Amino acid sequence: MAHTTPVAGPPFDQAVALTPQGGGHFAGQPHPAYGNMVGPFGGITAAQMMQAVLLHPDRLGEPVALTVNFAAGLRDAPFVIQARPARTNRSTQHWTLALTQREDDGADSVMITATAVTAARRATWSAIDASMPADLPRPQDIARADMRNVVRWVERYEMRPVVGPMPMQWDGAEADSLSRLWLRDDPPRPLDFTSLTALSDVFFPRVWRRRAVRTPIGTVSMTVYFHASAAELAATGDGYLLGQARSQSFFNGFFDQSAELWNEAGHLLATTHQIVYYKE
Amino acid sequence: MAHTTPVAGPPFDQAVALTPQGGGHFAGQPHPAYGNMVGPFGGITAAQMMQAVLLHPDRLGEPVALTVNFAAGLRDAPFVIQARPARTNRSTQHWTLALTQREDDGADSVMITATAVTAARRATWSAIDASMPADLPRPQDIARADMRNVVRWVERYEMRPVVGPMPMQWDGAEADSLSRLWLRDDPPRPLDFTSLTALSDVFFPRVWRRRAVRTPIGTVSMTVYFHASAAELAATGDGYLLGQARSQSFFNGFFDQSAELWNEAGHLLATTHQIVYYKE
Repeated sequence: MAHTTPVAGPPFDQAVALTPQGGGHFAGQPHPAYGNMVGPFGGITAAQMMQAVLLHPDRLGEPVALTVNFAAGLRDAPFVIQARPARTNRSTQHWTLALTQREDDGADSVMITATAVTAARRATWSAIDASMPADLPRPQDIARADMRNVVRWVERYEMRPVVGPMPMQWDGAEADSLSRLWLRDDPPRPLDFTSLTALSDVFFPRVWRRRAVRTPIGTVSMTVYFHASAAELAATGDGYLLGQARSQSFFNGFFDQSAELWNEAGHLLATTHQIVYYKE
Repeated sequence: MAHTTPVAGPPFDQAVALTPQGGGHFAGQPHPAYGNMVGPFGGITAAQMMQAVLLHPDRLGEPVALTVNFAAGLRDAPFVIQARPARTNRSTQHWTLALTQREDDGADSVMITATAVTAARRATWSAIDASMPADLPRPQDIARADMRNVVRWVERYEMRPVVGPMPMQWDGAEADSLSRLWLRDDPPRPLDFTSLTALSDVFFPRVWRRRAVRTPIGTVSMTVYFHASAAELAATGDGYLLGQARSQSFFNGFFDQSAELWNEAGHLLATTHQIVYYKE
């Protein structure tokens, strides 16, 4: 796909394009192609936070961990992300981030906070203990979920459900909370740390799967651990990832979600966890 | 156990005692009873970060999530934790924290960063999907692990290994990374959000279990999700918790750990995740 600048490229590249403003400040805005019920898809906001670290001139190494806290729903308006290296060691670096939007009265309100760790990795003994489930149908053999007329952002992902699809009937029939699906960006684009961050948040709310009740939800805090370097992401290219998500506890208004993302070759690229508000 | 002030109580209460200094600043110091190989046990530092939120006069609700980033090894010297409510909503509150220590040249260095979420929970439909493993021997039927002469902090926990104990021989024999153990504070004390935070970090390094190689390690970032209110913690009292921990990936210098903590009645009190540096 030919394009002249990143911002003219695929919607994802447009969405995570930030404008450096000096002093670790980066200007951006929600992208309409990643709109959610209210405000933007949380995964794209998390990717924008990751991008601020990646674009920072003082960055050391590659992402190892990212925690994003969704303190308030973003308005459809410009924002500024400040990324600050709180501590730089010999091979690791700790980041503190905040995304602010300007209120009508001119004050800047914190909407998102985040921390990140980057590191210069060295080759060591390595092992993947969480293996990709065996005997899965190939992505091309599974029908793509029809996600039109849901919310805008889901059209930006090919989702091919293997097990645990979105309930067809909201009849309160309880089930397990597990979903497995093949997924990739639409249009396809080479995987990088920003798109892997966004992909970590594509799973529909576990409480919907668990209960077949469409209670309002909102992710409160999300953590991504990266188990790959840029080389493994490049080798993944625009291929599919297998995503798997499930919950461990639903308790008085908050449930957790843990998920894994493997590439087709079986490399576990990321593990991710979140805690999510649910209304009832 | 009678004591006049918290600081005169059990070592844990002494360790998490912080002195409010106004403006969201709290003074504290590493406690010798929780000493690690170098610096303090990370779990006690995480508990001190949690405590700063709990002591803050503007706090709303109870802990839902805590992420602690270990940016540098603490020195055996006083520190100051600053806890700042970055955003307060109607029922949730987002916290940003930093722990600093003063350098010889008088400058304050950031050693630890953290974010936390507190919330006023409401009673909702609830379910525990990650059940406590069945048919476990009771804690009183398992010998306590002899952890004397290891590091100071492990003496502050009763640990009764069910499966996956610390390797007896460092012979490089690979195994799975799973450990299960009954555990509680020593001396026993009623469970609260600070001690539950510390208990989330008691598992010995998964890479040691996985490889039977004692490579140097250090937790880089740790997240705790709380699935209980003060009432469930109070009901747990000074009883045992079942802890279970395992890894999913060891990749070029960093491995993850996910763990669960149930009380004896089977309530899943916390799920916790961390990413850990390992040398080789």
